[in-house]
Amino acid sequence: MGRSLRVAVAGATGAVGLEMVKTLEKRNFPISELKLLASARSAGKTMKFKGEDVVIQEMTKKSFEDVDIALFSAGSSISKEYAELFRGNKNSVMIDNSSCFRMDDDVPLVVPEVNAEDAFKHNGIIANPNCTTAIMCVAVYPLHKAKGLKRMVASTYQAASGGGAKAMQELIDQTADVLAGKPAQVNVMAQQIAFNLFPHIDSFLDNGYTKEEMKMFNEARKIMHMPELMLSCSCVRVPVLRAHSESLNMEFEQDITPEEAREIIKNAPGVILCDDPANKVYPMPIDATDKYDVLVGRIRQDVSRNDKKGLEMFISGDQLLKGAALNAVQIAEVLNR
Amino acid sequence: MGRSLRVAVAGATGAVGLEMVKTLEKRNFPISELKLLASARSAGKTMKFKGEDVVIQEMTKKSFEDVDIALFSAGSSISKEYAELFRGNKNSVMIDNSSCFRMDDDVPLVVPEVNAEDAFKHNGIIANPNCTTAIMCVAVYPLHKAKGLKRMVASTYQAASGGGAKAMQELIDQTADVLAGKPAQVNVMAQQIAFNLFPHIDSFLDNGYTKEEMKMFNEARKIMHMPELMLSCSCVRVPVLRAHSESLNMEFEQDITPEEAREIIKNAPGVILCDDPANKVYPMPIDATDKYDVLVGRIRQDVSRNDKKGLEMFISGDQLLKGAALNAVQIAEVLNR
Repeated sequence: MGRSLRVAVAGATGAVGLEMVKTLEKRNFPISELKLLASARSAGKTMKFKGEDVVIQEMTKKSFEDVDIALFSAGSSISKEYAELFRGNKNSVMIDNSSCFRMDDDVPLVVPEVNAEDAFKHNGIIANPNCTTAIMCVAVYPLHKAKGLKRMVASTYQAASGGGAKAMQELIDQTADVLAGKPAQVNVMAQQIAFNLFPHIDSFLDNGYTKEEMKMFNEARKIMHMPELMLSCSCVRVPVLRAHSESLNMEFEQDITPEEAREIIKNAPGVILCDDPANKVYPMPIDATDKYDVLVGRIRQDVSRNDKKGLEMFISGDQLLKGAALNAVQIAEVLNR
Repeated sequence: MGRSLRVAVAGATGAVGLEMVKTLEKRNFPISELKLLASARSAGKTMKFKGEDVVIQEMTKKSFEDVDIALFSAGSSISKEYAELFRGNKNSVMIDNSSCFRMDDDVPLVVPEVNAEDAFKHNGIIANPNCTTAIMCVAVYPLHKAKGLKRMVASTYQAASGGGAKAMQELIDQTADVLAGKPAQVNVMAQQIAFNLFPHIDSFLDNGYTKEEMKMFNEARKIMHMPELMLSCSCVRVPVLRAHSESLNMEFEQDITPEEAREIIKNAPGVILCDDPANKVYPMPIDATDKYDVLVGRIRQDVSRNDKKGLEMFISGDQLLKGAALNAVQIAEVLNR
């Protein structure tokens, strides 16, 4: 554990911000001063941290003058507005949960279990990956290290939390309305989510993929240092509150058996092997919720191949934790080692 | 339209049976006599058919003595018990929705848009495919015919209706309980389904796949006459009421562009092209519900390949209709052409 730091959480009242504060507390991150920053609307309210009330302050450029680490989760436009304070700054680091700097060459994109060493190459800004990508990388990287991942086809089952606290509330409200025989009100998400699902997360690109799907493609390549990784992803929003699941079909350079994969996952950081189908043990979002580790299971040899280079598996991870807040705090921990 | 037939529906009060009766009515299937058969528990109750009350009778072996076509959806054990009445019988045909005869050599397995001609090779029994498989085949077959399907990776998003009327009610009851802060009662399904999902449909096999997943593999090969088709499937139950969705990654023998695929789907039977993402048009279970046709969209060139032989797409189809009742009635229509 390193020295005590002055930490700011920008966007402390959002779904991810709240989890950042909780995670800093739970992991006992060494903090000499904690600043909780939000918009003027929330300023003056208080949040508990280690039993004490911390007053939420309105975020201004002055807020970061005496801060060592700033965890940002206030949306891309806010991140862009404040980034200039950090870029090239030797005294403080921005760990940014938005997507806007992730692919910048001078911004490391870090999943600590995969590429912790990249964090030290920062120039004032470190990016926290897309939630689906972080959850996938922590599960897939140990298999890649052992057997060389070549190509992957992913289909996701993404929770409402990916759209923020308002999207989670919308799932609950719509569900209550539908059960009461009333029409679902669509305000935050692209479509009705209650008793429905839709293959539309973030906007559509010219190649027919969504930005979310291409984040998986681009960010996974950067995080795992695999500029040639072939990866196709279909991202689907499902009526689940806060854990994302992913169905992964993987092709490796070398032969890999399910038994070998289970041994690798058992010994890897950030994941829990959850693979005893005979006893109804496999990853599920309700079990992944509130957990730091990503659940990995349903590991089996791909029957659509004539060799032993293919595996199928299913994973679930808490979108707000490994998919966002936890990973950001872990990056701060790496910097403070 | 052929001659009027004496039709029996075995299991008329189940989720699929109810839809069989509705579908016979809506499609104006020529019926001279309709027998609605169920267990002793339901005998004596009535169901509406074309405005008239039809009394439900207790199913016995005598029930089928004067029947031309019997649509069975009463579970595998009932189908097995009654099959002897039909096998080798030249006067009546059993169209069976259970899984028990699907892979028998003398039982055709039919999706009319794909292999209608197989229906005439029956020996008294014709099998109705697994719901996920029927929905997939009607969407994929026209692409295969044009470009030669070689390999497919599928991940499903399967509705509660696949578990019958009781599973649908369990989804509703559990959801109401969870919203009220009460624990979800798990009685019918393998796990809590409210605000959750699980990769477990039917039982697990030695190869790590579920029976449901291997049904896709085996039945798709038989229906599409592709004994060498390479197919890997991950089947997941999601909190949706009655339409199944599937994320499909396909590899073809020949090059195929998304534009070509859209033209093929536009002109194919049993499917509706639903692919205008810029206007938020793509397949979703709430839109597929109560529809005969399978919705096909999100068609795009697979970015995990360096050639033009790969496509991704997303489909949704009503599990009770194309996945069960409609397909069974369509088989009866083929026989009566």
